[in-house]
Amino acid sequence: MEPYELTATEASALIAARKLSCEELARSTLDRIRARDADVRAWSWFDEDMIVRNARELDKRLPRSPLHGLTFGVKDVIDTVDMPTQHNSPIHVDHRPGQDAACVAVVRHSGSLIVGKTDTVEFASGGRRAVTRNPHNPAHTPGGSSSGSGAAVGDKQVQLAFGTQTGGSHIRPAAFNGIYGIKPTHGIVSREGAKMYSHTLDTIGWYGRSVEDLQLVARAFRVVESDGPAPAGVRGLKIGLCRTPVWSSADAYGRAALMEAARRLEAEGAIVRELDLPPAFDGMDAAQQTIMRGEGRAAFLPAYLGSHHLLHEDFREMVENTRAITPAQLVQAYDLAASCRRAFDGLFGADLDAVLTPASTGEAPEGLQDTGNPAFNAMWTLLHVPCVGIPVGKSARNLPLGIQLVGPRFADSRLLDIAHACAPAIHQNGVLTEIQPDEAVTA
Amino acid sequence: MEPYELTATEASALIAARKLSCEELARSTLDRIRARDADVRAWSWFDEDMIVRNARELDKRLPRSPLHGLTFGVKDVIDTVDMPTQHNSPIHVDHRPGQDAACVAVVRHSGSLIVGKTDTVEFASGGRRAVTRNPHNPAHTPGGSSSGSGAAVGDKQVQLAFGTQTGGSHIRPAAFNGIYGIKPTHGIVSREGAKMYSHTLDTIGWYGRSVEDLQLVARAFRVVESDGPAPAGVRGLKIGLCRTPVWSSADAYGRAALMEAARRLEAEGAIVRELDLPPAFDGMDAAQQTIMRGEGRAAFLPAYLGSHHLLHEDFREMVENTRAITPAQLVQAYDLAASCRRAFDGLFGADLDAVLTPASTGEAPEGLQDTGNPAFNAMWTLLHVPCVGIPVGKSARNLPLGIQLVGPRFADSRLLDIAHACAPAIHQNGVLTEIQPDEAVTA
Repeated sequence: MEPYELTATEASALIAARKLSCEELARSTLDRIRARDADVRAWSWFDEDMIVRNARELDKRLPRSPLHGLTFGVKDVIDTVDMPTQHNSPIHVDHRPGQDAACVAVVRHSGSLIVGKTDTVEFASGGRRAVTRNPHNPAHTPGGSSSGSGAAVGDKQVQLAFGTQTGGSHIRPAAFNGIYGIKPTHGIVSREGAKMYSHTLDTIGWYGRSVEDLQLVARAFRVVESDGPAPAGVRGLKIGLCRTPVWSSADAYGRAALMEAARRLEAEGAIVRELDLPPAFDGMDAAQQTIMRGEGRAAFLPAYLGSHHLLHEDFREMVENTRAITPAQLVQAYDLAASCRRAFDGLFGADLDAVLTPASTGEAPEGLQDTGNPAFNAMWTLLHVPCVGIPVGKSARNLPLGIQLVGPRFADSRLLDIAHACAPAIHQNGVLTEIQPDEAVTA
Repeated sequence: MEPYELTATEASALIAARKLSCEELARSTLDRIRARDADVRAWSWFDEDMIVRNARELDKRLPRSPLHGLTFGVKDVIDTVDMPTQHNSPIHVDHRPGQDAACVAVVRHSGSLIVGKTDTVEFASGGRRAVTRNPHNPAHTPGGSSSGSGAAVGDKQVQLAFGTQTGGSHIRPAAFNGIYGIKPTHGIVSREGAKMYSHTLDTIGWYGRSVEDLQLVARAFRVVESDGPAPAGVRGLKIGLCRTPVWSSADAYGRAALMEAARRLEAEGAIVRELDLPPAFDGMDAAQQTIMRGEGRAAFLPAYLGSHHLLHEDFREMVENTRAITPAQLVQAYDLAASCRRAFDGLFGADLDAVLTPASTGEAPEGLQDTGNPAFNAMWTLLHVPCVGIPVGKSARNLPLGIQLVGPRFADSRLLDIAHACAPAIHQNGVLTEIQPDEAVTA
């Protein structure tokens, strides 16, 4: 087994035991990137010499944390002091920010090796798409906007990577690339130094190749530990199977992945019950759109004024408010979100440990232009709740399929514990088995 | 009259008519700063040559907007591409960010002359205080954390300046310095590139020497125009006199300023009625504290890890959560704020045009360590509503006193129209008359 194939958790243990050096891991990582980059094109920037040099420096230090020496990709809308941050925008070609974003500073201080910047949809929003291909089937998108981060982890080019989610930009690519991802509770991780799109929605998340990998990073961010002990296994866990108000947008594979995950959890002793959300939740998808585009007006005004001809018309339309979003609509969307947040949290307790729900509409679309539908992500982003993406299997075209587990606000640590218990069942101990599409038309 | 004495609106008209050059205004501004800087110490950074050079460049261009050539100070927690951003923190001495913050980019594109960076409380939060003195009485604070911005505008060293408010950092200094200020609806102006403290609370605001000055800047930010015509005057305006749940923290001057403003409005024909907020609002002050400190944990984690010994213990305590804020308390605070936002907006309509409420507890404290109590600001910040600070008069010690008008979310433009109608009455046509303290103990 080559070092690049190790999960973050496996590599962390070997580095701590001095059985693996940071440089060995870095060189193996570079070999993997060199072998695969022409096909996957996950990276918008990396520097081979810098990677090796920084790994050597890490080998000279005592490890500060379990992240020491682990390889980290950074979505290219997140600032890095020693690399350009280009946002896949012609406005920011070779732009060098003066400091690390907050999230980068935390993992860099913890000893992570920042490998490079991963390609993204323009400003993690609209306009230009990433050139990244799905590592499991290069004719398909890896999803977006965290395209490069999802593909780099999915292709084992790095162990960990940051993404961001405003609509469905983080958890959907986790599903499309067959990896794990967490979108934590809104605000638990500082977004300072990441491109702002919608202040109500923008959330930093990270990818890994196991739940343990996600937990390693959560600890670096001092995500509050859960009160009780972690569940010993799936048995007795109360899982709410939530099709959501946008269930009709799921394709045959999307439906199958959800039901297969539910069956696997039930087979291991989980108590899976249907969870219907109250009618107010029907408006959440539209509310997320209203807020995202409404807040995007302010976010892209500086570029609109200063670099008008270099800004894609998607953004010009947002600043010009071509959809005519009114202040009353915005206020209504904020207030609906607030009341649904309270209602959603209230569902948890003795009868519910976690919600099981689709991570995407199904298979990753063909081509690179359509990065997939965020329908199954937008509501959760607006609810501010933690979401953990877990792989379930793959389609006949070798495209990974996933689901997500969702918990109440600030139960990130507990949700990761539950995901840790559930993952071996859902992911069949790490094997992406082929799933049969659910061709039945469901109501 | 020297050019530096002109309000932004007055100077804008002269520049548009080519009766005043940007360089003349800049040189007059510099003379004023030179004459007063040793006493007021509003600035953490400025460069005389750069100011004149940039003004000359502006004179070569056709004016792009009414802000062309107007002098602007920028609180030193807001990034500027051509000046250091130091946050009054030893971690950031001479730090040069790679780009302008969003708000700076907008006014720079509009032709404003960025004069320099204004002193601030460390990270606009705690720790080190600004060295700035109150220009009306140097033995007293100008307030904080927007200390330098408030004092620079109050001392006529610039016409306009950016501040920020997370608790009471913007409107309180407006009152203490005898100037106008707006804290707009949360999110209307992008905070990108301003130091993050609390994502739920942080709001960019600006100061001016008249309501028209505030409106000039609001138009640059494309703050949505109000539906109806601006009120022609005070007569018939329905004003809710709101003492707030923290009324007992007002001092004799604070009480007097509010009641004097109410009397002046009534004398001009306004319909002023007492406005009692529902009991739920009693918890808003504590909720604001919980959210500010709870969210500060994530905001200051990078500095805590990377520059521990250079970070003031106020921030270390926040990251270590020494007040033991629980996730449940945070969620409760968020949910209370959301329901109070909806309730507050619902008060407006046929019976209420604007709320009149204190801008500070009263006089600016003596010395520079205590920058004043944010009690009369914290709730409004958390409500996300627009607030406009208006001067009322001064104390026997020559310390300015002010009030604020408050409107519902996103009614910024309408609130500015109302403030424009009310300001001549409240501010007695720009004269700070001495106010008699209200020594009566009120319930």
